[in-house]
Amino acid sequence: MQAQALQYAREHREQFLNDLKAIVSIPSVSTDDAYKPDIQKAAEWVAAQLRDLGMDRVQVYPTARHPVVYGEWLGAGADKPTVLIYGHYDVQPVDPVELWTTPPFEPTLRGDNLYGRGASDMKGQVAASLKAVEAVARTGGLPVNVKWLIEGEEEIGSPNLAAFIANNRDLLACDVCLNPDAGMLGPDLPTITYALRGLAYFEIRLKGPDHDLHSGINGGVVRNPANELARLIAGMHDGNNHVTLPGFYDRVRELESDERAELSRLDMDEAFYKKQTGVPALWGEKGYSPVERTGARPTLDVNGILAGWTGPGGKTVIPAEAMAKVSCRLVPDQDPEEIFEGLKRYVQANVSDAVTWEVVEVTKGSPASISDRNNFAVKAMSAAMESVWGKRPVFKREGGSVPVVGQMQSLLKVESVLIGFGLPDDNLHAPNEKLTLPVWFKGIEALIHFFYNL
Amino acid sequence: MQAQALQYAREHREQFLNDLKAIVSIPSVSTDDAYKPDIQKAAEWVAAQLRDLGMDRVQVYPTARHPVVYGEWLGAGADKPTVLIYGHYDVQPVDPVELWTTPPFEPTLRGDNLYGRGASDMKGQVAASLKAVEAVARTGGLPVNVKWLIEGEEEIGSPNLAAFIANNRDLLACDVCLNPDAGMLGPDLPTITYALRGLAYFEIRLKGPDHDLHSGINGGVVRNPANELARLIAGMHDGNNHVTLPGFYDRVRELESDERAELSRLDMDEAFYKKQTGVPALWGEKGYSPVERTGARPTLDVNGILAGWTGPGGKTVIPAEAMAKVSCRLVPDQDPEEIFEGLKRYVQANVSDAVTWEVVEVTKGSPASISDRNNFAVKAMSAAMESVWGKRPVFKREGGSVPVVGQMQSLLKVESVLIGFGLPDDNLHAPNEKLTLPVWFKGIEALIHFFYNL
Repeated sequence: MQAQALQYAREHREQFLNDLKAIVSIPSVSTDDAYKPDIQKAAEWVAAQLRDLGMDRVQVYPTARHPVVYGEWLGAGADKPTVLIYGHYDVQPVDPVELWTTPPFEPTLRGDNLYGRGASDMKGQVAASLKAVEAVARTGGLPVNVKWLIEGEEEIGSPNLAAFIANNRDLLACDVCLNPDAGMLGPDLPTITYALRGLAYFEIRLKGPDHDLHSGINGGVVRNPANELARLIAGMHDGNNHVTLPGFYDRVRELESDERAELSRLDMDEAFYKKQTGVPALWGEKGYSPVERTGARPTLDVNGILAGWTGPGGKTVIPAEAMAKVSCRLVPDQDPEEIFEGLKRYVQANVSDAVTWEVVEVTKGSPASISDRNNFAVKAMSAAMESVWGKRPVFKREGGSVPVVGQMQSLLKVESVLIGFGLPDDNLHAPNEKLTLPVWFKGIEALIHFFYNL
Repeated sequence: MQAQALQYAREHREQFLNDLKAIVSIPSVSTDDAYKPDIQKAAEWVAAQLRDLGMDRVQVYPTARHPVVYGEWLGAGADKPTVLIYGHYDVQPVDPVELWTTPPFEPTLRGDNLYGRGASDMKGQVAASLKAVEAVARTGGLPVNVKWLIEGEEEIGSPNLAAFIANNRDLLACDVCLNPDAGMLGPDLPTITYALRGLAYFEIRLKGPDHDLHSGINGGVVRNPANELARLIAGMHDGNNHVTLPGFYDRVRELESDERAELSRLDMDEAFYKKQTGVPALWGEKGYSPVERTGARPTLDVNGILAGWTGPGGKTVIPAEAMAKVSCRLVPDQDPEEIFEGLKRYVQANVSDAVTWEVVEVTKGSPASISDRNNFAVKAMSAAMESVWGKRPVFKREGGSVPVVGQMQSLLKVESVLIGFGLPDDNLHAPNEKLTLPVWFKGIEALIHFFYNL
């Protein structure tokens, strides 16, 4: 039956591509309410596809802003696993539109690539999931239960998703989440993202004099809050670029040798990061490779700093106050609350008594997430990718945070299998976004294998 | 003859006050070109006063913006010293005008005080000089030669004064400059300001990645230019709050014990500075008192710093660049150029090779200035003040910079005697500016003594 499903997928490539073009041609830009009708149209398109696949309880749920599409098929039986397929049908804006070779919402084939906004991020990935389920459903029938949660607000930070999940825990109950919103490191490098870093984000505010002072009249008797803030920030790293906040590393899960070996297979080496960032030299925590430092080690960065006169020319002022935004990327099992406490203890212990201070949380901290690489669904995906590409996928840790993965973990208590069939050069969020079709077709086949492997 | 001049001054107080009111009533606000006709009127008023005093070569010289008034009387002979009297007839704006008790350009007596914009800064001081010369000239005649240089751009930074001085070196040639644009520390504390700090002002710019980066994807491999800038700034002071730039103290003229004793007579103690600045505690270079630290020791302050996201909320960005404005107050005999070189050497030696950097001068550096307290004119002024107040004046170092004093030194090679008869509570540059008349009348008498003592 697996072979029939694969056969079906190969025979229906043209129809799959036409369906993909249909959804890419809807300008469902979530950030601009001028596109509200198109958002609705895209949601309805997804719902129609789900009904067409024989899904039950298909519904477009309104939220405070853009709707969530739900559908399910539980015909495999309660003894079979249930997979919740996450996706989003909204897209980024297209500006600067003049840099597009062909119009962003007129999906166009050039060589192996389909160009259009959302082709890769992530209408292509939603369509791959739909088409893999179609191939399996229309041949031997689905061997597992599936649920769909396709939102329309991912590109604006999913403001209403957590509430939707929290209010619909029973509806969404599942054994694992398939999240195809990640990507591959190269067309021949099937990739499973198994860990994401968490985030803790703070603002440090120092106050010195009660008004801006003349640096001539008072320079030498007051602690300049900008100088003091610089001193505090400087002290947050030691000579080996370790973070010095009290307790910062206490709960950090150390990399084991097999995971280090796995990560070293990735070609995200020094040259890769230099090219990607344009820096003259890399920097980072002593004792770890670049890919370990971005994925498996916690960091601390100033995201913004401001004090005094920053316009053209000079103003001889001692600023009354200084502010820095400082955030930490967290790894398992760091606790954002403990990091906040550690930062406050650090400032308390080190700050001059000639200024007053305050540290506030800018956004609620989110912990890191990590999947067991021996989880049943990860193993099923790994085997599926190996079947299609003839090689074991690379296991990647992602340095950023994907809130929905944390929400699945905290609200539904399930892990996510993070994959995707886009490539690093797909121009996500940029002009001339594209999807490489030969990889996409392989991806559909990998998903077919995945459903059977489960 | 000295007694007659003093007598004249006492008998003409009412007329002196009326003349002061006349000039204060002209709204010669230099920053706003709507007052151009009043600027001209004030300049003509000064010129008329000089002519009335029998000065020669009285002329209102146009400049690129507001005119300079010149006049001279060289009748004392080439064997007598020539004093150049500096002043300015322009004033600060009056906003917020609604906070004035009486209209700023309707000079009004309340108790001992005359209220009005410019009453203290510095039309009152210019008038005191005119009236002292009048008293001397109308009685025994001037025992010294005098020249006048009264400009109209002081409150906007004297943009055209240096060029005027440089182009008129012969006209302005003199033995000493009398600059009554300083003030007294209290009504019974005659004060001579004998030193000013210099200034060197820089901008440090660091660049890391070639564009703002996602702090999740790249956090851990690139040197954040804001963190690096903080580290550089932190390293500019050591644990004793000394500045660490190479060679920074090499040329600093150390305070001698008699000068420290003199400065300790001033009541600018810890309580004074805490009240003035509102800081919870003072700060500064170890081993020196507050008044020494603001007047006689060099400092380094951040005047502004900016990088990344500084608006509300959080943005998880690693900024591509970071900038700080850093300036040093200098003391004799520091060289601004050497300070610039020292800063560049410091950054060069300490900056991470993972960023690129640039240090630029924001404004042309100005050296500190200091008068020999045994200079003939300083001695003459000190004795004059002692005659009037019955006590030796306090000798004060001023932490700020007065560019015209540096210009007199560099362009005319003369020292300035910096005095004035305003008080700390005169509300300079603020609503309800006032001049305390009993002190002003004493000041006129002190100037009479000064001309004779010379």
